[in-house]
Amino acid sequence: MGEFDLIKEYFEQQQTCDDFVQLSIGDDCALVSVPENYQLAITTDTMVENTHFLPSITPEDLAYKAVATNLSDLAAIGAQPKWLSLALTLPNVDESWLERFSQSLLQTLKDYNVTLIGGDTTKGALSVTITAQGLVEKGKALCRHQAKVGDLIYVSGTLGDSTAGLQQILSGKSAVGFDEEFLQQRHFRPTPRITLGRALADIAHAAIDLSDGLNSDLRHILKRSQCAAEIDLSNLPLSSSLLNLYDRTQVEQFALSGGEDYELCFTIPPKNQPLLEFRLKNLDVPCTCIGRIVPEFETKKCGQFSIRFLRDGQPIDYSSKIGFDHFKE
Amino acid sequence: MGEFDLIKEYFEQQQTCDDFVQLSIGDDCALVSVPENYQLAITTDTMVENTHFLPSITPEDLAYKAVATNLSDLAAIGAQPKWLSLALTLPNVDESWLERFSQSLLQTLKDYNVTLIGGDTTKGALSVTITAQGLVEKGKALCRHQAKVGDLIYVSGTLGDSTAGLQQILSGKSAVGFDEEFLQQRHFRPTPRITLGRALADIAHAAIDLSDGLNSDLRHILKRSQCAAEIDLSNLPLSSSLLNLYDRTQVEQFALSGGEDYELCFTIPPKNQPLLEFRLKNLDVPCTCIGRIVPEFETKKCGQFSIRFLRDGQPIDYSSKIGFDHFKE
Repeated sequence: MGEFDLIKEYFEQQQTCDDFVQLSIGDDCALVSVPENYQLAITTDTMVENTHFLPSITPEDLAYKAVATNLSDLAAIGAQPKWLSLALTLPNVDESWLERFSQSLLQTLKDYNVTLIGGDTTKGALSVTITAQGLVEKGKALCRHQAKVGDLIYVSGTLGDSTAGLQQILSGKSAVGFDEEFLQQRHFRPTPRITLGRALADIAHAAIDLSDGLNSDLRHILKRSQCAAEIDLSNLPLSSSLLNLYDRTQVEQFALSGGEDYELCFTIPPKNQPLLEFRLKNLDVPCTCIGRIVPEFETKKCGQFSIRFLRDGQPIDYSSKIGFDHFKE
Repeated sequence: MGEFDLIKEYFEQQQTCDDFVQLSIGDDCALVSVPENYQLAITTDTMVENTHFLPSITPEDLAYKAVATNLSDLAAIGAQPKWLSLALTLPNVDESWLERFSQSLLQTLKDYNVTLIGGDTTKGALSVTITAQGLVEKGKALCRHQAKVGDLIYVSGTLGDSTAGLQQILSGKSAVGFDEEFLQQRHFRPTPRITLGRALADIAHAAIDLSDGLNSDLRHILKRSQCAAEIDLSNLPLSSSLLNLYDRTQVEQFALSGGEDYELCFTIPPKNQPLLEFRLKNLDVPCTCIGRIVPEFETKKCGQFSIRFLRDGQPIDYSSKIGFDHFKE
């Protein structure tokens, strides 16, 4: 089976009904239209075997997660996901694997109403690079540089679950109980917070999705916005599954430095808090206020935008590892 | 040096002055605006070590070619290249290599007035995936399905040079003479035919860039447009360097089945031929009429959209290999 047949057979099955797509898979380029008053948001993420996923991952989980992590970036900027290009590098043509991978990919795209508009299939070590595109109303994007002193800091969902799930997978623990199963699913099937991102687009200031861990990702907002943060560890949202299986110290470590939760961390001016609470009632995603944006600390370390950690309102000394970084670990 | 520093140091050096880019490298997404009356053209291509390039390639040539092959896809649809995302997978952080790669990439983008808007840097076997975006006036894109019976078939530049250059490189022949140097440069530094694509956008019907070889790529147009072609081998544009170094049979084989020339093949109604010739006078790229679009042959092989080869106007029997296909060869 040749490269072209391969693309055709597995990925041309989707039925697109997106009026903005004039040309999709099968030409030199895709052609899309961007409606007036919208900006185009674009993000690219690569997942490489043995770096981002284990060889034991199922093709279904790999396809889901590759899509979900890209949609999460669009959610973090407040955009509605629209189109996606897939660059798939495979060591060989395994038809059964491709069938499972493509079905999961197309189902996930269908679930999120996203159209596959093109891509490339090449031979090499297994990796998946996705470029996703979405639309956001002009002037409403949630950028990292827009946090303001006085903003409240929120996170969605619960933190630390994915890393705990990964630790279980790495230790060879098969998911037997509810809690183990929950944590492993949080690792394999993170939920991109798209509806939340859309609901925040005109009331929040800054947002980021938590791919490398709160302690690391929040600093990107702080650095870009030239400010600092106070985070109260007592308020970290933690799942009962995580609390059931690990002690408090380990749980906080996971919540602060564990990656791949793909929850949103966002900052919002206090005046918009009532509107946020109102909108959250209509969404199926809990959000928790964990701190606030404060002016830059005077004793800032070189290049390190600071977070002051509190517990029950009292400052504590907390030095945790910076979030996951492929070339460091 | 960590992943984030790496991205920052090497790729944030560009000075963007593109009014359509509101947010670039360093956020969850890039944000761009698409002007009214334009469509967005999007293409993705991956280059993998040992599949698309040899380990001996210089970082400068790799960066150039990864950009050029993507811009060539935009040229083939008649779009003006605008923005580019880079997904770079590296086995390790080699600062000297990165410096050379990034300088070449940014210089190439500057030459073509394209802005790097984001990407991802990951650890793994060396590969480069680029997603490039361009703008084309609504209704003017050169799609593969738009060829019409009676159209003249043109190709730009000369054919077969890149494959001949690759053959020399593979045989370990260092480029000593002018002809050898010319062919190897045609392999390492193909020219995306952007100004030609733009000049064709309102007068040609269909176009494709020749990445897999004329014999293979032209069939994509024929299949999508449900028609056949007559090609006169006497009219194939061939470089004097190719003719100096190879015999006629070998030269035709390179020209028909050799990949990676990245010239444009396009079809144009005869009534637009004078306008084409007029516009070509202002462009630095020769174009040659090599045949015409004809109705589908009655004895068409299953799924094989046919090309009838002529020499000096007389039909000949010519069976050549289909163009390059990674999983077949």
